[in-house]
Order: sequence, then C-alpha cells, then structure tokens
Amino acid sequence: MAGVSAATVSRLLNGTAKVSEDKRQAIEDAIERLNYTPNVLAQNLKTGSSRTIGILTQSLVSGYFADAMAGVDDALQGTGYAPLIVSGHWHADEEAERIELLIARRVDGLVILSGRMKDEQILKLSQRVPIVAFGRDLRGARTYGFCLDNYRGACDAVEHLVALGHRDIAFIAGPPDHRDAVARLAGYRDTLAKHKIRRQPKLVAAGDFSESGGLAAVERLLASGQHFSAIFAANDLTAYGARLALYRRGIAVPDDVSVVGFDDLHSSMYTTPPLTTVRQPLFDVGQRLGRAILTMIRGEPLELEVPQPTLVVRESVRAL
Amino acid sequence: MAGVSAATVSRLLNGTAKVSEDKRQAIEDAIERLNYTPNVLAQNLKTGSSRTIGILTQSLVSGYFADAMAGVDDALQGTGYAPLIVSGHWHADEEAERIELLIARRVDGLVILSGRMKDEQILKLSQRVPIVAFGRDLRGARTYGFCLDNYRGACDAVEHLVALGHRDIAFIAGPPDHRDAVARLAGYRDTLAKHKIRRQPKLVAAGDFSESGGLAAVERLLASGQHFSAIFAANDLTAYGARLALYRRGIAVPDDVSVVGFDDLHSSMYTTPPLTTVRQPLFDVGQRLGRAILTMIRGEPLELEVPQPTLVVRESVRAL
Repeated sequence: MAGVSAATVSRLLNGTAKVSEDKRQAIEDAIERLNYTPNVLAQNLKTGSSRTIGILTQSLVSGYFADAMAGVDDALQGTGYAPLIVSGHWHADEEAERIELLIARRVDGLVILSGRMKDEQILKLSQRVPIVAFGRDLRGARTYGFCLDNYRGACDAVEHLVALGHRDIAFIAGPPDHRDAVARLAGYRDTLAKHKIRRQPKLVAAGDFSESGGLAAVERLLASGQHFSAIFAANDLTAYGARLALYRRGIAVPDDVSVVGFDDLHSSMYTTPPLTTVRQPLFDVGQRLGRAILTMIRGEPLELEVPQPTLVVRESVRAL
Repeated sequence: MAGVSAATVSRLLNGTAKVSEDKRQAIEDAIERLNYTPNVLAQNLKTGSSRTIGILTQSLVSGYFADAMAGVDDALQGTGYAPLIVSGHWHADEEAERIELLIARRVDGLVILSGRMKDEQILKLSQRVPIVAFGRDLRGARTYGFCLDNYRGACDAVEHLVALGHRDIAFIAGPPDHRDAVARLAGYRDTLAKHKIRRQPKLVAAGDFSESGGLAAVERLLASGQHFSAIFAANDLTAYGARLALYRRGIAVPDDVSVVGFDDLHSSMYTTPPLTTVRQPLFDVGQRLGRAILTMIRGEPLELEVPQPTLVVRESVRAL
C-alpha cells in the first residue's frame, strides 16, 4: 500500500536505518489506514530479543548520570536497540526491583550506573542477562564493570594546588560509604603526605556530594577559625555550594581562596569564576558501556579501554 | 520453593507493591535455583498491556527535561508501570521514529515532552496509543496536552524589574521557532509597552537557550554601547552565560546590572548571586502528566489543573 519494500517498512519500524521523509510519510499513511501496530512483543517471542537495553541510573536529575546515559543512548543510535531507562534512586532494594522489571521486559542487556547493590547480586543477575557496569570492578562470563581512577584524579587536583604554593588545603568529603568519595579522600591525604605537608584533621569537612552539603561545610570550616587558602571539594556540586558560602562572606574566589572540584559537570564551565576541576569523561564512559553491552550480546570478546579522569584548569585557582 | 504465595511473587516481579526484604531474598533465591525469568512479553500478549509508559524527552542532559521526567517517574512509582525513556533530540523525524519504537514495544501510553513534531502527527498517533503532552495545547479523544503560561511568566519578570525602577531592560531571546521563546519575548515587549517605556530594538539580543548563546549575546550588547541596567534572559542557561560575560568584564551583578532568568533550574539556587527567575514547576508538571496518562489508560475522565509559573525572587536583582 505504501509502495515501498517490506524491508523499508521493517527498517522504519525497527529503527535500524534512516528512511527518507517521503517514504516515511507513505508508510505512516498506510499504517494509519490499516490501523496497523507492529507487534514487537510477538516478534520477540520468536527471536528471544526485545531489542532493548535496560539502563539502571541512580538519578534522573543528576547531570553526572545524565551525561553517561546520553553516551549510552548515543552508542545505541542506529543499532536498532532502544534504551529503557529506570532509576534506582541509590536504594539497593529499589535497584533490585527495577532490574527485575527490566528483565521481565526481556531486555537483551543491562547497563548499570553505580548504585548500592552488592557486586555479588550483580554477578548472580548476570546469569540471566548480560551486564556492563560503571563504578564497580566486575569480571564474569557475562558481566564486566569498571571504575575511573578516582584516587589518581584526586592526587592530580591536590598536586596542582601544592605546585601553586598552597599548603593549608581544606577538603570537603563525600558520603563515607561511597567508594569514589573514599578514593578521593585517600588521594587528598596521600598527596599531602607525599609533600610532607602537616595533616590538619580540622581541614577535612563532611559533605554529601550536594550543593547544600558544600555550603554547610564551608560555614563550619570558617566558624572553626582554621586557616585555609584552598578548598578541594569531593565533587562539583559540593564546590558550587562552597563557592556560594564564600560569596556570602565576601571571600573572593580565587583571590582569597582557591576552589577545585571533581566531575566537570557541563555547568562548571559557566560558574563565576569557571571551575577548575577533575574531569570524568562520562559521555565517553556511556558510549563505551553502550558499545560493550552490544559486543557482549553478540557474544564477541570484549576489549575495553578504560578512560581516565584529567585535571581541567580554569579560573578558580590562583598561585599563592 | 520460596515459601510465599504466588501473589507475593507476582507483586515483586511486577513491582506493584513493596515486598519485605526476607521474602524478596527467598523469592530471588528460588528464581536463581530455577533459573526462572518471568516472561512479561508473553503475559502481555494475553493482557494486551506491557505495563510501560513511554516518555519522549528532547534531551537526556537538560535539567529542564530531567525534572519533568523525574516527576513522571515519581507518579508511576508503585503503580506497576515502568517508564521507558527515549530522546528525540529536538528533531521531528527522530521523535517520530522513537515513538514508533515505543509503540512497537506496546507501551500502554505515551508522555511527550515538547519537541518539534506537528500537533496533527500527535493527534494521528493518539489513535494507536493514548498520549499526554507538555508544551502543546492538544485536545482529543485519546490525547491531552497543556502548556505553562510563558507569556504571563515573562510579564511577571519584567513587572518586577520595572517596579524596582529599571527602564533600560535588555532581553536575550530564545530560538525564534520555539513557542515558549516567542511567548516570553511577547511578554517582555507588552509589559514595556504597558508602562510606556520606549522600545529599544537594540536591547533585544538573539540567543539560543544555551549558556554560550547568553554569553555571546551580552558581549554583543556591551559592544553596541547601548545602556542597560537589567537583563531578562529567556531561560536560566542563557542567564548563566550572561552572568559569566558580565563577570569577565568586571560588571557586578546585581550592583551594576540586574539579571533575571526563566525556568528555575535546580542550580539557579547556587549561582553567585543566586538567580532571580521565573519558576516552571516541572517536577509537578511531570507528576501531573504521569497521573494523567494512567487516568487515560483506565478510561476515566481527565481533570487536570494546569500549574503556573511563578517569580522566585533571589539576589540577582536590585532596585535602581
């Protein structure tokens, strides 16, 4: 009825290749006249594939996870696979429930972004569906997970401050049960020790990876009376809050206090001043995860090069 | 094998209710030993329902869409419906293709967030699946769409500046083919006219809803030599870029120039200074969309109260 081949209809409906505008129109008109709905579910019973990749994120509103999801989405474009995104909201139980929903919908593979489930749970799940994960070191027959080197990234940030003459460097930590946060704190401590800079426990303030946590931490640091010429914040959101706390007290960045973040969220290019930070290449990470899960589904061997964090020098740090 | 009722297993696997931790563990152990995978696709052939709601967003990395998606996700929690998120990336063709993917996966309903497809296309699609949409005024047997009153929001922002004595108010516009952007420009113009403030066409600068667009617009405004004491940016991202351009020239906000945005992204609470802006209640919008699509799927009458934008006064504006 549309005057095109069955293969063209299939390409349009499965999203496996671009179809020209006039052909798309003709097919859609025919679909409408016939009131036809392709039944992927029935097709799937035959092929055993739903052509979907489940993505478990922890937050739909975090720029951090958004970049990684966008990377996965990008890697799936034009492959015929569509991403099915769910959020676990950092609750191990919710993560497990949401993954059951995905498996029950016969996803062909799972991409897991961080979270609080145990690694053993994921190894178990991988018996039912292939899994690639970010923020976990996993190796298994049908699972692969990797982390960025948060420790190295934190060392680079502190080295930068030390090279510019800073000695009294405050650190605003992340959640103590978060492995990335623990690695960043270790990088901070070890780099100070390496340079024989006296450890000042009062310069380590608790935070929670959020702006409000960073703001409160700086208020506590200032109230403590302890001197510091620089702040290393465990992530960019924390740095934004820290920046606002300094602003409210009339403390200039970087003239009075230098600030370094971690993540390089998109908006860190546009803070005033633009933020010096450790870049996590999350879009790149997402692309690699997307390509890796497709490789795993095809049963091909996985060769995955893990990208690394790099220091991005902008304008929030000055030499002492 | 798990020592629980079939209904409890069903609740866990369909996500229709919370299951206690020990029962969940028992069920998961049994699932593992049996190597069982519930086949929702086969179930769906019987019930005709996949228990999924498709969400078409335009961007996975925009805080604007993220808030709305999080609202839909929140409304679906505990209902047994899972969101299936795809991105159209502001391309009408891609939007149409992604929606075909969703329909082919037998989503029970669609939530469409903005986009460039024609309203007639959506009305056609609604013959195949119920649709609720944000950013479009749609009424149909199986479709409902609403917009926030962008015109009113823009009027409120300009009224605020005028009430504080500002007369030379620059406007950084959004994309001229974007209906929200057009409404905000109209609100700006009409409010100036209402107060008999002379129109200065040179004070309207083109932007594109991005930080880089806002930065470039302020550079052009400053280069033009035209005086202005306030900037109304068509959205918050534009305001962030404008803020940075002023910072680079040593122009203080709000002491030298006041800045107002539109959207109230989460990060606007933490800019320096915190941004006065027009709040779009997008999480709330998402929740309403989520509840509305479920109502529509149940075949019940839809009574939807449309939330409105409100001015949020923070610290980026001062009286002249």
